[in-house]
Amino acid sequence: MYPGLRKMEYAVRGKVVIAADQISDNLASGKSYPFDHIVYTNIGNPQSVGQQPLTWPRQVLALVDLPDAVGIQHPDILRLFPADAVARAKEIKEGLGGHGSGAYSHSKGCRAFRRDIAAFLQDRDGGLPAEPEDIFMTNGASAGINMMLNALVADSSCGVMIPIPQYPIYSATIDLLGGQKVGYYLNEANGWELNMEELERSLQEATEQGIKVNAFVLINPGNPSGTVLSRTNLQDIVRFCAKHNLVLLADEVYQENVYDENAEFVSCKRAAHQVGLLEDDGIELVSFHSISKGVFGECGRRGGYMELVGFNADVKDELYKLASANLCATVSGQIMTSLMVRGPDQGDVSYESHQAEKKAIFESLRRRSKIVSDGLNNIPGISCQTATGSMYCFPSVEMPKGALPAAEKMGVSPDTLYCMSLLERTGLCVVPASGFGQREGRYGFRTTFLPSEDEMARAVEQIREHYHEFCEMYA
Amino acid sequence: MYPGLRKMEYAVRGKVVIAADQISDNLASGKSYPFDHIVYTNIGNPQSVGQQPLTWPRQVLALVDLPDAVGIQHPDILRLFPADAVARAKEIKEGLGGHGSGAYSHSKGCRAFRRDIAAFLQDRDGGLPAEPEDIFMTNGASAGINMMLNALVADSSCGVMIPIPQYPIYSATIDLLGGQKVGYYLNEANGWELNMEELERSLQEATEQGIKVNAFVLINPGNPSGTVLSRTNLQDIVRFCAKHNLVLLADEVYQENVYDENAEFVSCKRAAHQVGLLEDDGIELVSFHSISKGVFGECGRRGGYMELVGFNADVKDELYKLASANLCATVSGQIMTSLMVRGPDQGDVSYESHQAEKKAIFESLRRRSKIVSDGLNNIPGISCQTATGSMYCFPSVEMPKGALPAAEKMGVSPDTLYCMSLLERTGLCVVPASGFGQREGRYGFRTTFLPSEDEMARAVEQIREHYHEFCEMYA
Repeated sequence: MYPGLRKMEYAVRGKVVIAADQISDNLASGKSYPFDHIVYTNIGNPQSVGQQPLTWPRQVLALVDLPDAVGIQHPDILRLFPADAVARAKEIKEGLGGHGSGAYSHSKGCRAFRRDIAAFLQDRDGGLPAEPEDIFMTNGASAGINMMLNALVADSSCGVMIPIPQYPIYSATIDLLGGQKVGYYLNEANGWELNMEELERSLQEATEQGIKVNAFVLINPGNPSGTVLSRTNLQDIVRFCAKHNLVLLADEVYQENVYDENAEFVSCKRAAHQVGLLEDDGIELVSFHSISKGVFGECGRRGGYMELVGFNADVKDELYKLASANLCATVSGQIMTSLMVRGPDQGDVSYESHQAEKKAIFESLRRRSKIVSDGLNNIPGISCQTATGSMYCFPSVEMPKGALPAAEKMGVSPDTLYCMSLLERTGLCVVPASGFGQREGRYGFRTTFLPSEDEMARAVEQIREHYHEFCEMYA
Repeated sequence: MYPGLRKMEYAVRGKVVIAADQISDNLASGKSYPFDHIVYTNIGNPQSVGQQPLTWPRQVLALVDLPDAVGIQHPDILRLFPADAVARAKEIKEGLGGHGSGAYSHSKGCRAFRRDIAAFLQDRDGGLPAEPEDIFMTNGASAGINMMLNALVADSSCGVMIPIPQYPIYSATIDLLGGQKVGYYLNEANGWELNMEELERSLQEATEQGIKVNAFVLINPGNPSGTVLSRTNLQDIVRFCAKHNLVLLADEVYQENVYDENAEFVSCKRAAHQVGLLEDDGIELVSFHSISKGVFGECGRRGGYMELVGFNADVKDELYKLASANLCATVSGQIMTSLMVRGPDQGDVSYESHQAEKKAIFESLRRRSKIVSDGLNNIPGISCQTATGSMYCFPSVEMPKGALPAAEKMGVSPDTLYCMSLLERTGLCVVPASGFGQREGRYGFRTTFLPSEDEMARAVEQIREHYHEFCEMYA
């Protein structure tokens, strides 16, 4: 067995989650706990904790999947489906070359969908051009990240800069590929911003150790940090990558999840344009997006794409070859992606209801981000930066004196001890911060704010009560 | 850029296919060729060349995707959907824990579906037990193959035995991972059977070169060979793997595609049982299956699974971790997989029509396998083993004397020259045999027999006429 696989860790579905699943099974078979169900806040999986799918995209998807005779050509079709869903399904079927959702598409994804994505990007970035040929549709953002790291990590001398804390797909994949993780610390005191001296320090130290650093991972809005980075911060980062010839891997899957009215999502591409680095030899940049987050939350469908910016044709050809070996991203995810970037047109019968559904999800997420950030911050001993974006809070937790030796004795990190205790007492499943990385001596956890507002308010109270007990137990 | 990526080749979507796509675009913009469309026989993608999706599975899928209020609970639902599709959709929604198709599932796949698969396997293998916990649902078989090779190829000293000819995902992935391809030749003269002396020779030579061979790839029914292996041949192979401690990677995605009434698909698991190697420490075996082949042909949906047999718990835990890092296989593909292994029940309203649709596709494939094998075999200079299974023929083509220097001058293999010429003259897109591997001095191509019977009969005639011209041109 490959040693890189043994080394790899994946906290979001690690020890605490496995324990939670076991408790869930025990509950189902009648065992008694101080709670009646597990509240899963370990993973950004909105529809698993009550978020409803958007109606119109699902209607279009169903119509594309149905054979014509029992679908768009059925005489009673308009009894069940709105006319604009039928019309879009027809258009998508044509875009798929008449082959429907059952055939492999082009390995980059169906061209008609890539045109929709390019139009969306152009609109988002104030008219900056985007090319369908530079877009690769993927099975969620994960598959794109995987593909790029595969192309970039040649051997154990190759390093990739990743934030601390980070989303564990990066550390896990780099370990699996046998490359070097080069961590840079986010500044918790300053809302988890990136500090340029810290980037230079990290890069320099790695270089001195003989690591060839060739890529830089940025997660904006942040996971797990919940931070939306400022335009100036982004421009500095783009300059840093260009200066040091680092491929910028921009994880921008939370671009729709910005809750603070003073914050704004700025794409790395736009930031690069603003500092004049979109020209030839300026910067190599890949942006990842997904249907799993935003307000769609279509995690199970595995849809997403990446846009390549500034790469030469040769590299793009190699990546196309890699995409070809996986044949294509799931067409169902491709269809949903096209519906995310282009909803019903204004004036269409589903337009208002679609907008209303999206707004309701967004506003509730915004309220929940406040409930959780503020609530956790009000617990003495727990401190939490406000989540201005994404779906997560990443509070720090002061460990009572006895927790450290107790954790050591059990062979787990102190925050794993804390999370296990929280799980067993309250049924709340959060992830130890150590799974994402943090400064030595800091302890904490990551929680989503995806369950309902009531449930999240209750969760905050449970965390408060449990923390009190936990401090007494390990005083 | 990682050198393994540059090295990797993927013929099924290689040079000839890229040229075909270009011609297709040219045709669309009015350029004139001696044909009016490209006939794609380069890839096993049935629905792209006219195979219709099966109605009932698509109806169930659509119902699962539709939110309840506009789907299974809609008052008019039975006007459009049969009652057994509605009932199964309800069952699937419950199996998905009420979260529908939009949430990440368990990383091995939804448990209810894995139970269906285990029951199917048990039934297929004459009662041999199969465990849901040993099944991992994947994005097509490709993702499972990728996962296993990732786990098995530790470094450049690791070797994997692969058939020559083989399906290029194996060579491509091994190259990408930086491992060693250890080829064993199939015996063309004997219907592409595996010869045990050849396996021993191949393994011994590799071992002498310092390669640590730890896995063996078997494709049965064969791709590209079209061969269904005999029970005795399979038993010998299983014994060989057990004797040399090789993990057997059994690519069994064409298990439903057996056309010859004297042939029968025997799973490697069953063969292992028959020779007493299913006990502890007998053999480690992984079987891959897919919804892309058989009569479903649901390539675009990316569904499949692998069954692990004989692995210890530790290895299974590591593989589960790897699956976790990819979150889960697309739920849409998982649903379709569950519908493939468990159709409507006998007596259900859709039962007869579902069986009839499946039979029509199968019988037509059987006829086409004959049309193409026999037709090609009747062309002097072309020789083709009968395809008793899968979706492919892999004929050899005698090269006229002038073709070899001409190919060398153009920097391509002689069979690439041939396939390009065939494409440009007839619009038929086949893949050079060199992309699959073959004995030195042999030339040929792989073709599917997936386009309609008329089109395949015409294709055989075109190959005959073109070969005549080709021989004159390069006499």
